[in-house]
Amino acid sequence: MNSFDKLTKLFSDFPGIGPRQAKRFVYFLLTRNPSYIDEFITLIKSIKADSALCSSCFRYFISNKSPSTLCPICNDRNRDLTKLMIVARDVDMENMEKTGVYDGYYFVLGGTVPILEKEPERLVRIKELEKRLAKEADLKEIIIAMNANPEGENTEDFLRLRIKEISGAKNINLSTLGRGLSTGIELEYSDSDTLKSALKNREHTS
Amino acid sequence: MNSFDKLTKLFSDFPGIGPRQAKRFVYFLLTRNPSYIDEFITLIKSIKADSALCSSCFRYFISNKSPSTLCPICNDRNRDLTKLMIVARDVDMENMEKTGVYDGYYFVLGGTVPILEKEPERLVRIKELEKRLAKEADLKEIIIAMNANPEGENTEDFLRLRIKEISGAKNINLSTLGRGLSTGIELEYSDSDTLKSALKNREHTS
Amino acid sequence: MNSFDKLTKLFSDFPGIGPRQAKRFVYFLLTRNPSYIDEFITLIKSIKADSALCSSCFRYFISNKSPSTLCPICNDRNRDLTKLMIVARDVDMENMEKTGVYDGYYFVLGGTVPILEKEPERLVRIKELEKRLAKEADLKEIIIAMNANPEGENTEDFLRLRIKEISGAKNINLSTLGRGLSTGIELEYSDSDTLKSALKNREHTS
Amino acid sequence: MNSFDKLTKLFSDFPGIGPRQAKRFVYFLLTRNPSYIDEFITLIKSIKADSALCSSCFRYFISNKSPSTLCPICNDRNRDLTKLMIVARDVDMENMEKTGVYDGYYFVLGGTVPILEKEPERLVRIKELEKRLAKEADLKEIIIAMNANPEGENTEDFLRLRIKEISGAKNINLSTLGRGLSTGIELEYSDSDTLKSALKNREHTS
Repeated sequence: MNSFDKLTKLFSDFPGIGPRQAKRFVYFLLTRNPSYIDEFITLIKSIKADSALCSSCFRYFISNKSPSTLCPICNDRNRDLTKLMIVARDVDMENMEKTGVYDGYYFVLGGTVPILEKEPERLVRIKELEKRLAKEADLKEIIIAMNANPEGENTEDFLRLRIKEISGAKNINLSTLGRGLSTGIELEYSDSDTLKSALKNREHTS
Repeated sequence: MNSFDKLTKLFSDFPGIGPRQAKRFVYFLLTRNPSYIDEFITLIKSIKADSALCSSCFRYFISNKSPSTLCPICNDRNRDLTKLMIVARDVDMENMEKTGVYDGYYFVLGGTVPILEKEPERLVRIKELEKRLAKEADLKEIIIAMNANPEGENTEDFLRLRIKEISGAKNINLSTLGRGLSTGIELEYSDSDTLKSALKNREHTS
Repeated sequence: MNSFDKLTKLFSDFPGIGPRQAKRFVYFLLTRNPSYIDEFITLIKSIKADSALCSSCFRYFISNKSPSTLCPICNDRNRDLTKLMIVARDVDMENMEKTGVYDGYYFVLGGTVPILEKEPERLVRIKELEKRLAKEADLKEIIIAMNANPEGENTEDFLRLRIKEISGAKNINLSTLGRGLSTGIELEYSDSDTLKSALKNREHTS
Repeated sequence: MNSFDKLTKLFSDFPGIGPRQAKRFVYFLLTRNPSYIDEFITLIKSIKADSALCSSCFRYFISNKSPSTLCPICNDRNRDLTKLMIVARDVDMENMEKTGVYDGYYFVLGGTVPILEKEPERLVRIKELEKRLAKEADLKEIIIAMNANPEGENTEDFLRLRIKEISGAKNINLSTLGRGLSTGIELEYSDSDTLKSALKNREHTS
């Protein structure tokens, strides 16, 4: 296999990319000028060097070669020590930060647990989570923030089972994100679970 | 215009139907045998005769020519007199009934109020609602149950403005359906409003 | 089952309509005023009375109670007697007429033959076609005009097999619509069959 | 802007990639191991080195550092010297080669000409095409193979205008790919242009 086909195959591994678009990427790179390619390669090298995996929440952050192993959020002593939100991926955490209303800390699981998965430890950072919880002293609430779909619910069940002993011993409350009407949703097309939650979580305004 | 074109035009008025599908409907009817057409016409005549508009909630119900002007739900004295849910359409009410958890009464507005609409009275049963609220004695909560989209929110604002005087005088609480993660929704694709509500309405389970 | 549910079920049989949209249709009719319903019923009755199935091409046409059993096209003696186009449905014929370039006659098969179908005679007017071909004296070409998909190709194979004896005996040429690039199609997403035909049918312009 | 954001921005330039997917790509790379990144960078460097732009048809080909500036197709003396197909992009040419039926040569324009474009010379290799045509001695037909959409037709018009003098002088025939029913197309949804061509290009089979 020549380098053209090899690179096409490699791009096919990128999230959401099939063989046809992968080939387009290769042609796209072929038609760039050398300075573009140089910058591309430099940036690919840089992100690894400029980033670090936070030793506390396990998200990637821009470290700029600073010796600190903590990301800015984990380093921020003004946040609420009593709350920890467990998310599946870095992007979920970023999206939650954009709301500007959550002031606790995070833990990035690094993935989700598919239904009937035999070895969830290989897919998510459950050991790292257990280690972190063992050290927590002030934690009062763990918010399990998974997608509202079957794999998200399965991951939630898995987490509950694995952390209930330690959360029970330390008297830590477990919670999950509230269900209800998401922006854009219509009543006619909502399932009963969503409507039940929307009714239960109804907002009293006057 | 011949009857073929006239019927095509009439079918084009049906919800969600364009001219091409309307024409298909006409051809579909042309190829049915006479007994099918007879049954179709009989049923169209029957639904008007068999149904009635409930004089209390304004939904259509199967009256079977009974003299009662109240639908089975409005007739059911075991439901909670203190709660009234305002929905836009009959199907919204049906979908909420399927949850099996709401035990109050309903009012069907008959539509929604588009943004910048000059004459909302022509589109929704606001006068009928005001009349009904004037007669309510035991009501403690009005749940405004609109779609989580701009037209739903505009309708909600319109309703609040129109009923706040009477609800204030009668000490009736106003509420709206809770926002949060609907079934199937992923965190990565959620907007900040949805995530904020999901965080606020989080469920504490242990 | 009450008339509401029965009419919902009947609308679910309409082409392209599921149970949810069928229910919407019923609510839509419930909210129409009596004169609308009257017109609707009158039109449904009229189309059968105003239309007739052409005894030659088997399409539905507006007969306006005239005693003729031939549609305007079959009645038009200025068209080319030597050409007959076989289409699956009335709409295909209408769409071809819109081009304004075909001047022969038509035969509407009334459907297509699914792959592995055991009794194609029940689905398409093959016997009527055979009867018509037996009477044709001036016919020189039969154009089989089916969709460019597997069911269309299967119908084409079925037709060839059934009419080859008579077309051979009468020295009638068989043809099919040309393959090539349809409006909107891009080369990158075309399959080899389409490209081969597009190459073969290329247009020499100077 | 840090390297993370810079790389996200660069990936957003890739064909068909928006900012959200671009960010996913960066996270995807962050979670790869060093050997994967090394291979990725090596391949990006290699494709430029291993490829060359054919000096005759202007497509990219795997040169493997051979000194030849001609791609295997242009180098193949068994192909038909009398035919030249002009395509917009490398992938169009590859797709045409897959049919196995075209035996002439190619010219890759490198793009298309948008409607109302003021400087088409900057977007397509028209000067290179003119230079090539000037040198052709045996050419009898130029096949303009563009997408069947407005930009494709505009490019075709542009090409005709620019090459008509030289093709006239050299007595070269101009052709375009045939229109008709593409695989999967249904008669009911075809426009008149497509049906007209399908009728004109109909295939006589017996």
